[in-house]
Amino acid sequence: MSKRCVMALLLAASGLAMANEPVDLDMVSRIRQEAFHNSQVMATFSHLTETIGPRLSNSPQMAEANAWTRGKFSEWGLSNVHDDAFDDFGRGWEFSAASVEMLGGRVQPLHALPKAWTPGTDGPVEGELVKVDIKTLADIEKYRGKLGGKVLLLGDAREYKRGTEPDSHRHDATSLEGLQEFTVPKTAAADRAKRVKEYGERQQLSRAVNEFFAAEGALAAISISSWDNGIIRVAGGGPRKAGEPVGIPELAMIAEHFNPLVRALDDGQTVRLRVNVAARFTDEANQPGHNTIAEIPGRGGKAGEIVMIGAHLDSWHTGTGAADNAAGVAVMMEAMRILKAVGARPERTIRVALWSGEEQGLVGSQDYVARNFAHYPEPTDPAQKALPASLREPTGPLRKLRDYERFSVYFNMDNGSGRFRGIYAQENLAAMPIFEAWLKPFHDVGATTVATRNTGSTDHIAFDRVGLPGFQFIQDRLDYFTNVHHTHLDTWDHAEPEDLKQAAAIVASFAYHAAMRDERMPRKPLLDPK
Amino acid sequence: MSKRCVMALLLAASGLAMANEPVDLDMVSRIRQEAFHNSQVMATFSHLTETIGPRLSNSPQMAEANAWTRGKFSEWGLSNVHDDAFDDFGRGWEFSAASVEMLGGRVQPLHALPKAWTPGTDGPVEGELVKVDIKTLADIEKYRGKLGGKVLLLGDAREYKRGTEPDSHRHDATSLEGLQEFTVPKTAAADRAKRVKEYGERQQLSRAVNEFFAAEGALAAISISSWDNGIIRVAGGGPRKAGEPVGIPELAMIAEHFNPLVRALDDGQTVRLRVNVAARFTDEANQPGHNTIAEIPGRGGKAGEIVMIGAHLDSWHTGTGAADNAAGVAVMMEAMRILKAVGARPERTIRVALWSGEEQGLVGSQDYVARNFAHYPEPTDPAQKALPASLREPTGPLRKLRDYERFSVYFNMDNGSGRFRGIYAQENLAAMPIFEAWLKPFHDVGATTVATRNTGSTDHIAFDRVGLPGFQFIQDRLDYFTNVHHTHLDTWDHAEPEDLKQAAAIVASFAYHAAMRDERMPRKPLLDPK
Repeated sequence: MSKRCVMALLLAASGLAMANEPVDLDMVSRIRQEAFHNSQVMATFSHLTETIGPRLSNSPQMAEANAWTRGKFSEWGLSNVHDDAFDDFGRGWEFSAASVEMLGGRVQPLHALPKAWTPGTDGPVEGELVKVDIKTLADIEKYRGKLGGKVLLLGDAREYKRGTEPDSHRHDATSLEGLQEFTVPKTAAADRAKRVKEYGERQQLSRAVNEFFAAEGALAAISISSWDNGIIRVAGGGPRKAGEPVGIPELAMIAEHFNPLVRALDDGQTVRLRVNVAARFTDEANQPGHNTIAEIPGRGGKAGEIVMIGAHLDSWHTGTGAADNAAGVAVMMEAMRILKAVGARPERTIRVALWSGEEQGLVGSQDYVARNFAHYPEPTDPAQKALPASLREPTGPLRKLRDYERFSVYFNMDNGSGRFRGIYAQENLAAMPIFEAWLKPFHDVGATTVATRNTGSTDHIAFDRVGLPGFQFIQDRLDYFTNVHHTHLDTWDHAEPEDLKQAAAIVASFAYHAAMRDERMPRKPLLDPK
Repeated sequence: MSKRCVMALLLAASGLAMANEPVDLDMVSRIRQEAFHNSQVMATFSHLTETIGPRLSNSPQMAEANAWTRGKFSEWGLSNVHDDAFDDFGRGWEFSAASVEMLGGRVQPLHALPKAWTPGTDGPVEGELVKVDIKTLADIEKYRGKLGGKVLLLGDAREYKRGTEPDSHRHDATSLEGLQEFTVPKTAAADRAKRVKEYGERQQLSRAVNEFFAAEGALAAISISSWDNGIIRVAGGGPRKAGEPVGIPELAMIAEHFNPLVRALDDGQTVRLRVNVAARFTDEANQPGHNTIAEIPGRGGKAGEIVMIGAHLDSWHTGTGAADNAAGVAVMMEAMRILKAVGARPERTIRVALWSGEEQGLVGSQDYVARNFAHYPEPTDPAQKALPASLREPTGPLRKLRDYERFSVYFNMDNGSGRFRGIYAQENLAAMPIFEAWLKPFHDVGATTVATRNTGSTDHIAFDRVGLPGFQFIQDRLDYFTNVHHTHLDTWDHAEPEDLKQAAAIVASFAYHAAMRDERMPRKPLLDPK
């Protein structure tokens, strides 16, 4: 046995010994029975992905998803079911069709899909293809007067990257053991000024390029998908805020079709393309975003305290937002359904939040946390106001609202559709023996690991940033980062029903135990923002 | 060291000891210099894939490829450059665009491409989707009168298959050692009657279904791509022969879009699709196919003897026929170019053949071998005549033509674009020490292995079947059977220039040494067809 392995075992044993954390095994049994043998998680997952489809923030389909999830919560007997409006998030957008054809010597369909929040072509347009590479404002001058009526090929060819690992990955004992290592973070350089400058330059360039392409009368722009093997990985392109320059229709094309276009142009050939994108903004003015909220109210003296679970309901637009994140939503909804079905009567209130605007930077969850729990003061300087929260100068001490102290814990799911293998403790060491105790009845379904590590990039961070316990589960990766993340293949078939059932049982049990334990979840020290 | 490994080493050593096969290292050096440092293989490969594009047998692009390759051979100073017409192969076909859109509640583009030799839709058509599962002639009756104006979904959903191996594979010492094992074949059951019956039933069903769908007035039919992950793997659908019922437009759709349609119909939902396929037969009547042939004539007494190299020039229609088989064609053309460039003066004639009709069953190479070297008598019974050669009753002894005894050896490349790692000896043990000697100057570029094994499914079999030495090289598989084989991703970017250079050098050297050695290549005993 390796030294590391021995240490892991000792740690696990001592964790459990220290914990003495009560676990209601009768309740866990009821939760497991409901989750495993009476599951509705796939019905929920199927409706979200295959009836509603992709759910771009503020799109009509997102509104449909808000309404449908509210309906299910009400049907299941949850309380305080409502949409929580936030922010002047921006305009809705949707697309229904996109095609690109190479014309001329050889006529060939090329596979491309539009970037969100870029305009449609208003019917087919045809033009000569020109290569455009703008990295600075000065580069724009090279192309002035040359792009009218043209289709623009943005950037260069990318060499094919061979797949040297299997597409799909599940944890094994070794990889789980590896998660027990914590990397002491390097001291970040005091580089906020540099990052702010770069952010400002990127924003300025993007706005200038959009205005320039539109002013030139270019027909459409095409860039390369960020993954190979025919996968279209594409997020947003244009601005979602009314009044910003929307630019021209823009698409991401599979590498296997994009690279030949680059080579043809580099070879001096003339290439003509026909582009047809049916896409539209669904609002004239900015609209608020909407999170969907529902509760199982607590009973007795702790009813004012809050346990939250959640996942983001919004998705990108080319797949059906299945692993990212109908999976998380279906699991969180199912956890609430299970708790109602087994007759759970939690002491604390259990609240579920289905976030919007996650893909645009955790917008819905951050706004919700700011309005309900805590926030740093808004900057008064317009330049600071224009920056994302992570780049702003500190504005003063955290402003805690009433529910800040009534809040216990938030559990999130957003690392694809794979099975839970444990939980990241986000450096909250006092939480670890609690999680170890709660996980024990799920060791037999593969969830064994509590890691000190932080994980980021999703909605639990909105809580973590203000010092509230927010956690994300360790999940089997499956093909999240090889096939489906933000791609047109993020669809129903890449998920596993058994994984979603397992996850729902664990979330239900975690939420229940968090709602029942004597104390709220311990908190780690809040670091002052720097 | 394993026992198997020791045996392999002993075999290798004894093979070399027995061989005493002369190798002209000065010539190998010249060939390597030209192949590695003055290569034109990528220029050839690029023109075939990205200027001409896919080359379906008898399509206009195939004719363009015949013409272009003839031009290159002439430019390089080869002799006897001509197209070799064969058979009344069938009609040409081409497509330029295809789209499928889901209409109704949610409008979504679905990714599908047409099967070769199926008709176009003559503009967009819209219809309700119905599921059709016809496995026998009797099944047809279930659908009679129900398919007019409908779009047909053929077959059922298929469960997603996770990728548990890396996409791309190169041989290592272990896998090469594994190739040294030969599996003694099981005695095949005398099942020709059964196979003939099944073949007949399949043909009858296919014809009946095509006639039925057309008679019903169904708009189009959609089946599932045979691979997952958004890859469209599609070959032929309709008959290439004039006079056969062409049926209706038929497409293969990515599994991620096909399966949801099945689930929607199984759920009782109404689904409407818009289908638009621009495809056409390019001939009214059957046309011959065309192989392209060229030679470096031999000098002196052995000039009438023949060494051949080749690869198939035809491809399927949705990618650009890159790994299958512009790679093989570019390598074979480059080998001829190299031999001219280094001033090779072979004693035997070296002939290159770029086959057509390979994807339809080695048609071009079989017909060529039959007309030039040997064939079994044509059956007189029309029922036997209608069968593929492999299913016919024996018709009598092999008829050998004049050049049968003048023929030495044929080398083929058609296992994707990956690097040569050796050669399959097709159970011709007398050839093995010769190949071992010829490979030795290429050990340093990874080509080391001579395996007794047979390999099939490509044009060397046309020679092997009549007792002529025909060989196929062992190649690194790369992503041939995960991404590119017969798919829309069979494109330029999935090939490696260095692999093609290495292969061209080896083919040039093998062809040269075969043309120079005292004796023709030894032959293995010809098995009577049973």
